Amino acid sequence: MIFPSTVFLNGQFISKDRAYISPDDRGFYFADGVYEVIKYYFGKPFRMQEHLARLKNSLNGIRISYPKTEELTVVGERLIDINRLGDGHAGIYLQITRGAAPRTHSFPGGDTLPSVYGYAFKMPPFKTEQENGIRVISREDIRWHRCNIKSITLLPNTMLFQEACEQNAFETLLVRDGFYTEATHSNVLFVSRGVIFTHPDSNLILPGITKSVVFEIAGKLGIKVIQEAVLASETDHYEECFITGTGSEIIPVAQVDDKIIGNGKPGPVTKALQKEFLEITGKISS
Amino acid sequence: MIFPSTVFLNGQFISKDRAYISPDDRGFYFADGVYEVIKYYFGKPFRMQEHLARLKNSLNGIRISYPKTEELTVVGERLIDINRLGDGHAGIYLQITRGAAPRTHSFPGGDTLPSVYGYAFKMPPFKTEQENGIRVISREDIRWHRCNIKSITLLPNTMLFQEACEQNAFETLLVRDGFYTEATHSNVLFVSRGVIFTHPDSNLILPGITKSVVFEIAGKLGIKVIQEAVLASETDHYEECFITGTGSEIIPVAQVDDKIIGNGKPGPVTKALQKEFLEITGKISS
Repeated sequence: MIFPSTVFLNGQFISKDRAYISPDDRGFYFADGVYEVIKYYFGKPFRMQEHLARLKNSLNGIRISYPKTEELTVVGERLIDINRLGDGHAGIYLQITRGAAPRTHSFPGGDTLPSVYGYAFKMPPFKTEQENGIRVISREDIRWHRCNIKSITLLPNTMLFQEACEQNAFETLLVRDGFYTEATHSNVLFVSRGVIFTHPDSNLILPGITKSVVFEIAGKLGIKVIQEAVLASETDHYEECFITGTGSEIIPVAQVDDKIIGNGKPGPVTKALQKEFLEITGKISS
Repeated sequence: MIFPSTVFLNGQFISKDRAYISPDDRGFYFADGVYEVIKYYFGKPFRMQEHLARLKNSLNGIRISYPKTEELTVVGERLIDINRLGDGHAGIYLQITRGAAPRTHSFPGGDTLPSVYGYAFKMPPFKTEQENGIRVISREDIRWHRCNIKSITLLPNTMLFQEACEQNAFETLLVRDGFYTEATHSNVLFVSRGVIFTHPDSNLILPGITKSVVFEIAGKLGIKVIQEAVLASETDHYEECFITGTGSEIIPVAQVDDKIIGNGKPGPVTKALQKEFLEITGKISS
């Protein structure tokens, strides 16, 4: 990666040190925007169409009109290319807000154009964590009730993730009404007697793209998936637990708070899923 | 007001057209910030100490270290002065975010300084609405569970307020678990048989400063206040309803959805409170 990096802002590729946002941007005043993070394996995007489809859903969910999402494929490619990130694991961050307008809660007029910001970054895999498993903490899920929208209302996520960092944990599992929903920036899945359990898609969780890949792999391997939420009080009924996410890929959870999961080592279901996932992502660039 | 106006950004008073934010600002990525709006009556701030105290609580609530809140009194005064807004009703908007740092959910290091942005604007009273009352709609309260923190996670507020605008209503009352909490940018209070009822201060509502002034006035007038949440299903048990806020001051609610409140006209309790409120704010600048 070269510095200063080149970023994408409102139609232009510019040097990062020249990229500025108006304080009137509704992303700055109101968290009035959505985002996506796409992983590029050796220059090739993984599940780009799924990310763009989810971005469209998020935009629709908060009623931002931005018909040019397809063009973001080219933006991503070019950001990877310009910043010379095609030789390994990289990511593209894309954020679309409702644009800049004098501050008022109601949506601005139709002449206000959405702000589009994108940048590329190195995104090395979490090899040690994927091999050995991680420790996570659990906290009450205090987020809003439209977590299916990938919006930038992430203050609760940052606060809850920060608590994990301060306890040398890798993530924070979120618990709403006694049930695990997901984590601050990943989905969470449990395994009992060879069956995968996870919160069903609803307004309380993000429909994870890596999670959907796990479902595909499970189907192929004959592993049953039941989309039913897991009670935090029954954590010790499960032999395996893992988180999924664009950056995390598949990471085994060895411990939740003071509870060791299974024997504290990555279990057979998690390892089988990881192996297949590695094969799929390995094939992208070959 | 002169254009371009002069704003305050990170210690400097600058022309608005030179004010820019880094896209790395955590206010832009994560809604990682808090804000206040203070009203100035003919150049004099109303309840400045209460606003600063609430700002401190908000900063503490999300763990932003910014010890210089007291200096914001001077910032506000100067913004009013420079922009020649001392001759009527004006407002100061102040926003503090955790600052600009490469995007990662965890808090940045101690060398990252908070971003501070402030601007002044005309804030004329809602005279017609205060005299005649307003129509509001009600919607499910989908916000996060730390609404006592005045954070910039306002996407749900904007979405829910926009719905009111599209129905020519003035505000949207929020209903959580069947109870009115507050509105998208005001508190809501009801009156039954001369007694004021409103949601108690908790993590689900903002501790309103205008509401606290109403409590003071009620005490003076011998009007009882019971901090108990009102069931939306019992709206027609109440003869009066009104919203309070820095901008709204005290505005009678004549209709919620299709339900007329009382006889659809501002009631005696609301009018008595308005009269005293007007006297208090009238005295500030005299």
